[in-house]
Amino acid sequence: MALVVAKFGGSSVADADKIKRVAERVVEQRRAGNDVCVVVSAMGDTTDELLELAEQVSPLPPPRELDMLLTSGERISMALLAMAISNLGAEARSFTGSQAGVITTGTHGKARIIDVTPGRIRTALDEGAIAIVAGFQGVSQDTKDITTLGRGGSDTTAVALAAALHADACEIYTDVDGVFTADPRIVPNARKIDTVSYEEMLELAASGAKVLMLRCVEYARRYSVPVHVRSSFSTKQGTWVIDLPEAELVEQAIIRGVAHDNSEAKVTVVGCPDKPGVAAAVFRAVADADVNLDMIVQVGSVAGSGRTDISFTAPKADGRVALAALEKVRAEIGFEKTLYDDHIGKLSLIGAGMKSHPGVSARFFGALADSGVNVEIISTSEIRISVVVRDTDLAGAVKAVHDAFELGDPDNQAIVYAGTGR
Amino acid sequence: MALVVAKFGGSSVADADKIKRVAERVVEQRRAGNDVCVVVSAMGDTTDELLELAEQVSPLPPPRELDMLLTSGERISMALLAMAISNLGAEARSFTGSQAGVITTGTHGKARIIDVTPGRIRTALDEGAIAIVAGFQGVSQDTKDITTLGRGGSDTTAVALAAALHADACEIYTDVDGVFTADPRIVPNARKIDTVSYEEMLELAASGAKVLMLRCVEYARRYSVPVHVRSSFSTKQGTWVIDLPEAELVEQAIIRGVAHDNSEAKVTVVGCPDKPGVAAAVFRAVADADVNLDMIVQVGSVAGSGRTDISFTAPKADGRVALAALEKVRAEIGFEKTLYDDHIGKLSLIGAGMKSHPGVSARFFGALADSGVNVEIISTSEIRISVVVRDTDLAGAVKAVHDAFELGDPDNQAIVYAGTGR
Repeated sequence: MALVVAKFGGSSVADADKIKRVAERVVEQRRAGNDVCVVVSAMGDTTDELLELAEQVSPLPPPRELDMLLTSGERISMALLAMAISNLGAEARSFTGSQAGVITTGTHGKARIIDVTPGRIRTALDEGAIAIVAGFQGVSQDTKDITTLGRGGSDTTAVALAAALHADACEIYTDVDGVFTADPRIVPNARKIDTVSYEEMLELAASGAKVLMLRCVEYARRYSVPVHVRSSFSTKQGTWVIDLPEAELVEQAIIRGVAHDNSEAKVTVVGCPDKPGVAAAVFRAVADADVNLDMIVQVGSVAGSGRTDISFTAPKADGRVALAALEKVRAEIGFEKTLYDDHIGKLSLIGAGMKSHPGVSARFFGALADSGVNVEIISTSEIRISVVVRDTDLAGAVKAVHDAFELGDPDNQAIVYAGTGR
Repeated sequence: MALVVAKFGGSSVADADKIKRVAERVVEQRRAGNDVCVVVSAMGDTTDELLELAEQVSPLPPPRELDMLLTSGERISMALLAMAISNLGAEARSFTGSQAGVITTGTHGKARIIDVTPGRIRTALDEGAIAIVAGFQGVSQDTKDITTLGRGGSDTTAVALAAALHADACEIYTDVDGVFTADPRIVPNARKIDTVSYEEMLELAASGAKVLMLRCVEYARRYSVPVHVRSSFSTKQGTWVIDLPEAELVEQAIIRGVAHDNSEAKVTVVGCPDKPGVAAAVFRAVADADVNLDMIVQVGSVAGSGRTDISFTAPKADGRVALAALEKVRAEIGFEKTLYDDHIGKLSLIGAGMKSHPGVSARFFGALADSGVNVEIISTSEIRISVVVRDTDLAGAVKAVHDAFELGDPDNQAIVYAGTGR
């Protein structure tokens, strides 16, 4: 008998019929002898509808009240799911984030989980009931106000509850079969990955793979929660995100997958004085405006000019803010002008094996060169190589790299990981 | 500076525009120097929409989960109202029933308020904020589960909060101007009543006046909360429900108003054995089926037959249940059969003055007789006379009684209560 935390997103509970299907799935797990705690998001479009209501009332609603409003979404879906489960003859009890003991910081709209004290969930499970918890929400430690966790919050709720309950697994149900070696819409022979380490999944999430949010993976890694990303439409095994033994990773150059991201733009600060402290001043100005920098490159100064160019990428959504922040410090820093380019794409190759196998880089850049892709920025970590290319080159580049590492070959992963599936 | 609890019902907050109007009204009160605590119901049709969702999922939803679902309605309206108020430059904080300290019994769907511990509301008010509280909901003392109070629950929330906060007044905003001497749709010259005692309002509510629910008036009376029933569409004074000094009531035969009710049916149990204990057995059977009996009459036995008929009125909605309950005990009690008549109407004349003025009855029955209305059942209290008549006679009877006591005369009340208006 295992304890499983299962999370269903908004599209899985979008209407009464889908809620009933989720109920069947959950009751099946319970009847198989497992303790089940379910985390749900708000139904399909509920959050958007609530946001529209808020907009009709106020152009800039107070964050505390926006959280109060939005958290009614999960309240509706969790109560309905409890009803559907009870209809099938199993007992279910729904709990708000606050009732489930999800304690957060007080930053409305993007609170962070500080602690989870799941006493009531534990009791419900011990009494044989299926516990249903509202995802995405909690209660602030200091003011006892209702908070929301921001994007991907329900996944984080599920992982945090799994950690607090010492669950055997956290299942994230979604509309895809798992994590793939590349986006199947771009690479038709992309393959579902059976197992991936927390570190690799962190890099994948940070590089544009949307199936799991970064925060959720970080939380899972910190508490060693085995996460199973799987489809809500089938019973097939999905992708397990787990602690992979180091021993298995050094055997050969394991390359896990190719992620891409076209949500970023490139900002270039032209003609910076080439002296110490200038780059720091540029990045501080951008960071103070709450813009997350991603890749950074500094072009060496033109001989004798005493000037240099600094480029970085950042979310397109933050483009305007970043430029405005830079404009404010232009005179002070003494650069010439800024350029803004949102026709870029980022490609990342991820795999724990690459740190011990220098041949990976050669093959990677060879594949890009062979398909005529020009590389504008490069950044690397121990288990990742990322490049910025023209956005029009992005799909071709993803395919070329995926092919070069034979990631579509079904034998590829199977050989390496024989026996590690769960 | 006064402390006012103001309650706005679902029709007052039915859409964004109406919510903004309520916000203006509330902010005006705050700017006039009052501390304001607002109680809101769910927006217009929200509750019905949620019930429909529940129906799609389960034919018989567990009451605990139905309460969890329905309470999202007030969460939405209160957050939106807080946003609208904040938009006008005043501070507002919304609180769920649980956060506001509304402690109830555990009977989901019709919980009763046990205690109110409004610590957080008090703090919000002390800090200059407008407190907004979800009506109709609370948290159960034993299980800490979310509960709802049933019909008229938001009014009761408002009165209970007013009592706990020692508010100067509880304002119930509604879509009529106040309590009237009769239903203005039947009696065109019906007059708004300026002041009415708790006891009279109890009788009015119990006799079919729908403007305030019985529970809410009982609560107000127990804690001496002055209740002001008024229109959300105007700033006119409405009706004050207050403790009226006895001295003012004995001056003359004060008749407050005429209430009517056509929601009841008459059940007659024919041919009961005329011996002690039979009536008790009949009423116990009906009460055990959770049917509220209203008026009761027993017709004296026909000479020598040893048999008698017992009639009572009860809500039409409970008719089927009452008859089924009686059928089950027919053999045991030994009555012949039951009759069911739902073409009846009830008319009640209410006024504290009538207890010391026997002339009231004479004038009352005289008016009915003069307009040819046949009276089927009579019941009285110290401050009320009620009769059951044919439903087709009801409107005419209401008009006749209203005229006989000159209730439409604007001088009538003014003379008696000069100087008591608040």
